[in-house]
Amino acid sequence: MSFSSLELGVLKEIRPTEDELDRMYLLAESLIRDIRESGKADGMMVGSVARKTCVHGDRDLDIFMLFDPALPRMDLEREGLSLAWNIAQKYTDVIKEKYAEHPYLNATIDGLDVDLVPCYEVREATSIQSAVDRTPFHNRYIKARIGPYTDDVLLLKQFVKAGGVYGSDQMTEGFAGYLCELLVLHYGGFHEILTAAAKWKPGMFIDLEEHVEKWFDEPLVVIDPVDPCRNVSASVSETKLLEFIELCQGYLKSPSKWFFYRPPICILTEEDVKKLVSGRESAFIALTFKTPPYIEDIVVPQLRKSLHTLTDLLKRHEFVALRADTWMLEDRSMLLFELLVDTLPAIRFHTGPPVTAPVNASRFIEKYLHSDQIFAGPYIRDGRYGVELPRRFRRAIDLLSSSEVFATALGKHVKCSMAEEFSVHYGIECWQPGFEPFISEFLQKSSPLVRIRRAEARSP
Amino acid sequence: MSFSSLELGVLKEIRPTEDELDRMYLLAESLIRDIRESGKADGMMVGSVARKTCVHGDRDLDIFMLFDPALPRMDLEREGLSLAWNIAQKYTDVIKEKYAEHPYLNATIDGLDVDLVPCYEVREATSIQSAVDRTPFHNRYIKARIGPYTDDVLLLKQFVKAGGVYGSDQMTEGFAGYLCELLVLHYGGFHEILTAAAKWKPGMFIDLEEHVEKWFDEPLVVIDPVDPCRNVSASVSETKLLEFIELCQGYLKSPSKWFFYRPPICILTEEDVKKLVSGRESAFIALTFKTPPYIEDIVVPQLRKSLHTLTDLLKRHEFVALRADTWMLEDRSMLLFELLVDTLPAIRFHTGPPVTAPVNASRFIEKYLHSDQIFAGPYIRDGRYGVELPRRFRRAIDLLSSSEVFATALGKHVKCSMAEEFSVHYGIECWQPGFEPFISEFLQKSSPLVRIRRAEARSP
Repeated sequence: MSFSSLELGVLKEIRPTEDELDRMYLLAESLIRDIRESGKADGMMVGSVARKTCVHGDRDLDIFMLFDPALPRMDLEREGLSLAWNIAQKYTDVIKEKYAEHPYLNATIDGLDVDLVPCYEVREATSIQSAVDRTPFHNRYIKARIGPYTDDVLLLKQFVKAGGVYGSDQMTEGFAGYLCELLVLHYGGFHEILTAAAKWKPGMFIDLEEHVEKWFDEPLVVIDPVDPCRNVSASVSETKLLEFIELCQGYLKSPSKWFFYRPPICILTEEDVKKLVSGRESAFIALTFKTPPYIEDIVVPQLRKSLHTLTDLLKRHEFVALRADTWMLEDRSMLLFELLVDTLPAIRFHTGPPVTAPVNASRFIEKYLHSDQIFAGPYIRDGRYGVELPRRFRRAIDLLSSSEVFATALGKHVKCSMAEEFSVHYGIECWQPGFEPFISEFLQKSSPLVRIRRAEARSP
Repeated sequence: MSFSSLELGVLKEIRPTEDELDRMYLLAESLIRDIRESGKADGMMVGSVARKTCVHGDRDLDIFMLFDPALPRMDLEREGLSLAWNIAQKYTDVIKEKYAEHPYLNATIDGLDVDLVPCYEVREATSIQSAVDRTPFHNRYIKARIGPYTDDVLLLKQFVKAGGVYGSDQMTEGFAGYLCELLVLHYGGFHEILTAAAKWKPGMFIDLEEHVEKWFDEPLVVIDPVDPCRNVSASVSETKLLEFIELCQGYLKSPSKWFFYRPPICILTEEDVKKLVSGRESAFIALTFKTPPYIEDIVVPQLRKSLHTLTDLLKRHEFVALRADTWMLEDRSMLLFELLVDTLPAIRFHTGPPVTAPVNASRFIEKYLHSDQIFAGPYIRDGRYGVELPRRFRRAIDLLSSSEVFATALGKHVKCSMAEEFSVHYGIECWQPGFEPFISEFLQKSSPLVRIRRAEARSP
């Protein structure tokens, strides 16, 4: 299918220039030569630059250093880093060690953001020793096939980025670059994948090589062509999948440039926020604490876990959360809760043992028979004894400030950080420095398609 | 098993005297003679007096008039009532027509409360034409067997009455006299049934004649010995069953007179109620209206149904009921709700269509895309679109005063009565004249065993 004039216009802006690619390829070749000349490893350029599916302005160059799989893991890390340091220092002073599954080097060379990543050169993608060992296989698979679809991939990546559903990391739970490439390959083009995806439902299953060997129950399953036991889209959440589906439906119905250029979110002023928060009349409570010193892919899932476990804690104490969300800045992180009500009555119903468990039942009755702490009971409800007791936490803010917080399944690093210190903010106080965009989006929450349609109305 | 001195003492007080029985049997014989002499029907004394399982002070005499089953139903009602009137007028002027499944006569004769009930004299209990036709069969079954267990039945009836679990009517959902007789027969005595029931669980099944022909799923199933398709304990609720079980457990563990003499409930003063209600800090709302002009067995199930449907209405609007209960006086009835909170925020989440139903989804988005009535959205949650809208009923009292009440499945007669007029009371205003005992019990709610143990502590 040929591209529309809208799409051709977008492509003109996002295609990398020849100059851009030449510069990156020259640097890559030089780095690979250095690696090979060391005699210790082979070199390989991977990622979207290697496949020419990067967009104009991309500055990420990924160079893998492939070592003999016989090398022990500890030695790989030591020798890999040491080789990377030796090479990088020839080009720049701006070098950082980073850590994903194992350490790698990040260097800024000539304005490009270069990763030097040690890995094992394994025979088959199924016999990898570390997650990064799979990347060279992905690279070879895509490079061999993607040539005719380069523009389609560029459009799809731009489409999912602008729609806010891009990214394989835990923060976005969205569509990674490799996944976009596979989808274009599978359906045979940009229009083709959009037309198909507009009719997807959660539970969609795609297996390009028809070699699946495992059962997956994620909302979207795309079997890795180089590994029949891996779902490439494992991190795509149901909501992100449905947002992608609505974007495809919306674009096919009525396309516009806003599907490719993310509509700017309106950052609210403190005055706006005061008005919105007091207009909703719900209760906003935020916890903030130092962001644990780990990468986003480690911290964000823990923030989400903490959010869920604290929402459960609130629920156990009968506080209903309308919404909850989390955000991570470099220095501080926030767990934000919007509650239906912030204060509950003095009374609460406490459930006891079943009547048909006489030993426990007697113990329960005796405990409360002559207590002057109870409002009513014990009496029988739904087959069990229960008693009406004074509520321990009448205000949600007291509950979230209490040690009960630490009795929940917070993520490990989040727990450590909160144990050091955490602040509890109420109402407009949640409007903490740095979190303005997050809270602005929270208060104006809408689906990607709705955001696009509103942008079209403002500026067609 | 022989009776304890406590039980013998109770029996002494509750056994009917010879004089009492003689007086009732003489009157019964006279009435039966009159019926037979009319040549239109046979006469039969039924009920606990006929079986001598009535207690001292009982004044209820049930006389059945058995007509030929060939008589058409309309004629039975006309001729039955006419015969009853003719006979009753010979004895008294205090006569009322009453209506259960069909009409009968209630007369006060010599201080006794006499029912004259027309029914069909059918061949077998399974070929009855009206519910009352079964009664003569019950009477014959029990009379033939109960002789040796009269004292046991007296004790058990006194035990379930004092425990507050007596009565087959819908109001109490408890244990009827006939059921008590069957249980004593089945287990062979008062101690025997208590020992067995202490170990019952909901789902208990008893079939004296081993002739069941139907599946029942009520909490307690006791197959009628005269009808294999009927559960005698169909109206026993799970809670009443469990209350009976706890009473049995409690009595076996440590008996006292309070198991036979209902501990008086403490009627609160308005001051007490004010203190209790404000101490709980929950929200009390009561609806009162004219009691529909039908018998308790018709009205009470409708009050219960109304209570459930209005609790559901509250729940749909996110108001959580801690408890709800209903009471019926001669003139007015009350539906009483105790809510966790009485006021909710301006915002509410409104759930829309699934994202994967594109026609409805588009319609939903368009409806709210440029609305200035929304707080946020539409956005995707749990696979569906949703939008945050202003709440229609922020106060529970407004909801319960609105026409929404009539859009629910209120009982027919309750609906009629409420359509005429109903009042909504809040907080201490629920303390309406006549409902003092009901609200006192509501606020001091406890299980029968707990009530007994507290009475023992006050007066052993």
